[in-house]
Amino acid sequence: MDAIQRAFPTLTQKLDLRRQLDTIKPDLATIEERLRFQVQEFDPGISGYVSYALDSNGKRIRPALVLLAAHASGKSTPQHIDLAIAVELIHLATLVHDDIMDGASKRRGKPTAFAKWGAELAVLLGDCLFCHALKLSSNFPSQEISRKIAEAANEVCSGEILQTQRRFDLKLSIPEYIKIISMKTGALFRVSTELAAVLNNCRPDEILALRNYGDFLGIAYQIYDDCLDLVGTEGSTGKTVGTDLAKGKLTLPLLHVLAQSSPAEQEQLHNIILHGTPESRTELLAQVVERGGLKNAVRRIHSYLDQAVAALQVLPKTGYRDTLEGIPRAVAEHVATLG
Amino acid sequence: MDAIQRAFPTLTQKLDLRRQLDTIKPDLATIEERLRFQVQEFDPGISGYVSYALDSNGKRIRPALVLLAAHASGKSTPQHIDLAIAVELIHLATLVHDDIMDGASKRRGKPTAFAKWGAELAVLLGDCLFCHALKLSSNFPSQEISRKIAEAANEVCSGEILQTQRRFDLKLSIPEYIKIISMKTGALFRVSTELAAVLNNCRPDEILALRNYGDFLGIAYQIYDDCLDLVGTEGSTGKTVGTDLAKGKLTLPLLHVLAQSSPAEQEQLHNIILHGTPESRTELLAQVVERGGLKNAVRRIHSYLDQAVAALQVLPKTGYRDTLEGIPRAVAEHVATLG
Repeated sequence: MDAIQRAFPTLTQKLDLRRQLDTIKPDLATIEERLRFQVQEFDPGISGYVSYALDSNGKRIRPALVLLAAHASGKSTPQHIDLAIAVELIHLATLVHDDIMDGASKRRGKPTAFAKWGAELAVLLGDCLFCHALKLSSNFPSQEISRKIAEAANEVCSGEILQTQRRFDLKLSIPEYIKIISMKTGALFRVSTELAAVLNNCRPDEILALRNYGDFLGIAYQIYDDCLDLVGTEGSTGKTVGTDLAKGKLTLPLLHVLAQSSPAEQEQLHNIILHGTPESRTELLAQVVERGGLKNAVRRIHSYLDQAVAALQVLPKTGYRDTLEGIPRAVAEHVATLG
Repeated sequence: MDAIQRAFPTLTQKLDLRRQLDTIKPDLATIEERLRFQVQEFDPGISGYVSYALDSNGKRIRPALVLLAAHASGKSTPQHIDLAIAVELIHLATLVHDDIMDGASKRRGKPTAFAKWGAELAVLLGDCLFCHALKLSSNFPSQEISRKIAEAANEVCSGEILQTQRRFDLKLSIPEYIKIISMKTGALFRVSTELAAVLNNCRPDEILALRNYGDFLGIAYQIYDDCLDLVGTEGSTGKTVGTDLAKGKLTLPLLHVLAQSSPAEQEQLHNIILHGTPESRTELLAQVVERGGLKNAVRRIHSYLDQAVAALQVLPKTGYRDTLEGIPRAVAEHVATLG
């Protein structure tokens, strides 16, 4: 998920987009303040944990998507701020639980809730954040909004279950992989942009356009983030090569190479995936790059990013639409550095 | 929580209550069927897990409370069935996560999701059930209902956090203990009976009466269940003496004796709680019984059960009110066997 945060700096360096990003800044500040204010809604005995989870140094990409989609489809209203807060809380809840799954000790340079207080407390803390988000989402006058937020949360968790279930599953197909990441990452992106348009009472084709935009963008981001397992990133918060593979998480570049291999080659690859040493796994990933797995994944990312841009064409041409288009374009520039 | 299931057989043996319990049977069967039907709302890849969690052999006490409270405050409607399903799903979600906390291998004779598929999958499965319950609860025409269900779910998780946090905390006071169990167990009981009356558009005093009834009943049940740590229960699904104490969970009988002890005695008790052997802990619990800790807890349980019965007096005198009153009375008979 960190790919998103890494992608944003590029975006904000684009002078022609900065003006729109500047207009949403006050709303983002309000969201930040209101997110921190949520602590007061919890029992004093647990507010310390909640406060720690909320103060996660996140770049608030989903709230930014809500606000930009709101402007691009009409205007930003107080309800858009409520939507952004609910979606971000669900995201934060999933991060708390993700860190348990991954046994992660740090996230963005800070010890995770799991590392600080153990799995038990982290499970419950994530639950509290989920419930609180869904309580906030019950305040929308339209049930459609509340239901779609809960559905998206369900989809994120279901996607994570599928991913966990399919670890080391050598039969995982590329369409299945795409479906899983569309659930796990696409769902919250999609609901952010789709519901922003719903709140503005947009036409069905505009709502669908923003929904597709969010979905394609989420899928592209996740493939990109998964590719980092092959090439790594610098810095303390970055990914180390081969972490996913060691856990049996099969990502797109590898799936592509598997699909291209002869039965004999497949058997060899399966053997390394299931029983390999760290060294043989690193060697396998190098082979995946060499055999075009990464290139193929990069091609697919570009295709999803292009589809995200194309989806927006039904919206009126405004500076905000330009900014929404600028996000996949900025990601594309990042992706190009993968090779 | 098993105390509830253990209490029900007594209740159904009371001939004068059986008629009312019989009237809600068709609705309970509908709820059972609709609960199982929920599986279809999940991705096919995870429906096996969901189905396993739903098929938990639970006695559906919360659905029964919803239906009885519905009849006692007016009539049972399709919305009451929706309420019962949402509340039961939240309960089932918390059980899946509880079993991770407790490292429980079995629940009601069946391996737990945690034991079958590991902590990771159990965390995500619980999350899915939570999200699904809250999605269902977003379908009520009144936002008050959806919000109160989400609030109750939040309270259950917050209560569990407080309990986890206060393990081995020798400063835990009796009012704090009562507050924790009112959150952890009272909240879902309370919301079951309260919202049944809200759906019937009852007067505020009737709604409050049913809310208080659920709260008092939930607190009484939980104290009773906690007392079983001192005396145990037979059978494979029962509790073994001292399990809570070994985990640092301080229950009412022990808290009472601690409060009655001199500083020197307290120091001795603290030492066993923090550093004791299994034998010294068993010895400590025997001492707690001897020094009246269990008797005091039993007294308090009776007081909460009496308050539950008393709360109902504002409701019209009907067979259903009698049945609701019969539940705390049946629990009281069970409790009397504790000594």
